[in-house]
This record gives sequence, structure tokens and C-alpha cells, in this order.
Amino acid sequence: MRSSTDKLSTTFAALADPTRRAILARLSTGEASVQDLAKPFKMTLPAVSKHLKVLEKAKLIRRSRSAQWRPCYLNAEPLREASDWMEQYRKFWEESFDRLDEYLKVLQAAEPKKAEPKRKKKKKGSK
Amino acid sequence: MRSSTDKLSTTFAALADPTRRAILARLSTGEASVQDLAKPFKMTLPAVSKHLKVLEKAKLIRRSRSAQWRPCYLNAEPLREASDWMEQYRKFWEESFDRLDEYLKVLQAAEPKKAEPKRKKKKKGSK
Repeated sequence: MRSSTDKLSTTFAALADPTRRAILARLSTGEASVQDLAKPFKMTLPAVSKHLKVLEKAKLIRRSRSAQWRPCYLNAEPLREASDWMEQYRKFWEESFDRLDEYLKVLQAAEPKKAEPKRKKKKKGSK
Repeated sequence: MRSSTDKLSTTFAALADPTRRAILARLSTGEASVQDLAKPFKMTLPAVSKHLKVLEKAKLIRRSRSAQWRPCYLNAEPLREASDWMEQYRKFWEESFDRLDEYLKVLQAAEPKKAEPKRKKKKKGSK
């Protein structure tokens, strides 16, 4: 219905699933067959194959056509593009972190007025 | 059907649409009403509202409930988490870039053998 066929949308849609992200994490340790990938997920081979097809369409994995067991490999290139897209928003999440930091400083600056008597008590024993 | 309700999956699913990413880009320049957001997309208000609901559910935007026109604001926090997740794959896309770089060096190293006669011709006039 809507045009979600652009490259970035395909990448994000492929990443929007915990099993597919786990498959990528597994492949980051080295090539694997469909059987290898199916084991930790307690999934049927067709179910895993379906996820692999989504990842392959998004070019996040490559499958060898030479070997009979057709090993899968990670291809991180689309993640670079997705990461580049996110970078433009970095200043916003860093700003919101700075605002939290400023707020904490305001809280800390307001605190001593109440905490002063206690601090004086603590100093008694020191030096 | 599948458990796509975890936070990262919700974020990636919300980003897997060019209109929603364009809405975020618009909001990165400042708050906007639904009407403001609908204008550049030639979409109906209900269609835009549907996208806003997806973005709001993913906590990528916040909507003010105080003002009558309920302005939308960007909230980049979930993008920080998604970016952190991608960082673990940085070495892989950088490696593939390095491999391309190495391959280009190999090509360049192989080139002079063929190019040498031409270079000698060029040297005739120099010095």
C-alpha cells in the first residue's frame, strides 16, 4: 500500500524482528548453515528460511551458491547506511542527555541548603 | 504472530517507512501540528495521524496534551538505543571497506607493469 520499498525502509523492516537480529549476531561470529542457525531458536527450517529470505532481500546476509550446504554470511554494508541516517539525529539525543545533566546539576545545587547541617556533623570526626 | 513487541523492534518498524522518517526530519527543525505535517505529503489528516500514532507508540515523538493544537515533538532517545545496537557491527562494515581499499591497492600495484611503457613516453619531455 505505501512505498516501503526504498533501501533504508527494507533495512529497518528486516531489523524489526528479534530473531533476525539474533541471526545477524550469530553470523557476526562466522558463516553458518540454515541448520546451524535454526538450532538455538527452536524453529523449523522453513521458519528460519523465511527470516533468511528477508535478511537476504535486505542484503544484510549473503548466501553462498557454490557449497551444497549454502552457508550464510553477514553483510554489514546496509547497517552502515542505516547508521549514517541515524547520525543526523545524534545531536538531539545528546542534547536531551545534556538537559538531563543540567537538571541534575540544578538539583545538586539546590541540595546543599538542606544538606548543610548534616555535612557539618560529618566533618566533626575528620582531621 | 511473532514477538516484535520488544523496544528495538518497535523502533526499527517505525523507521521502516519513508513518510515516517520524513516526519522525524521535519520535527528535527521544531515542533509541528498534524496540519503542518500533513501539508508536504499531500496526505489526509487521518493518514498522517496513523503514522504519528506509530511514531508515538515507538516513543520517537511526543505530543503535547496541553495545547489545543497538540503539537508534536521529536524524541530522539530510541534512536540512541538503535544506534548503539548498530555500533557492534561497525567493525564489519569498516572491514569490508578496508577489504575494498586493499583490493584497490592490489589493482594499483598491478597497474604499473602495463602502464610503464606509456609512462616512459611521458617522461621524454620532462627534465
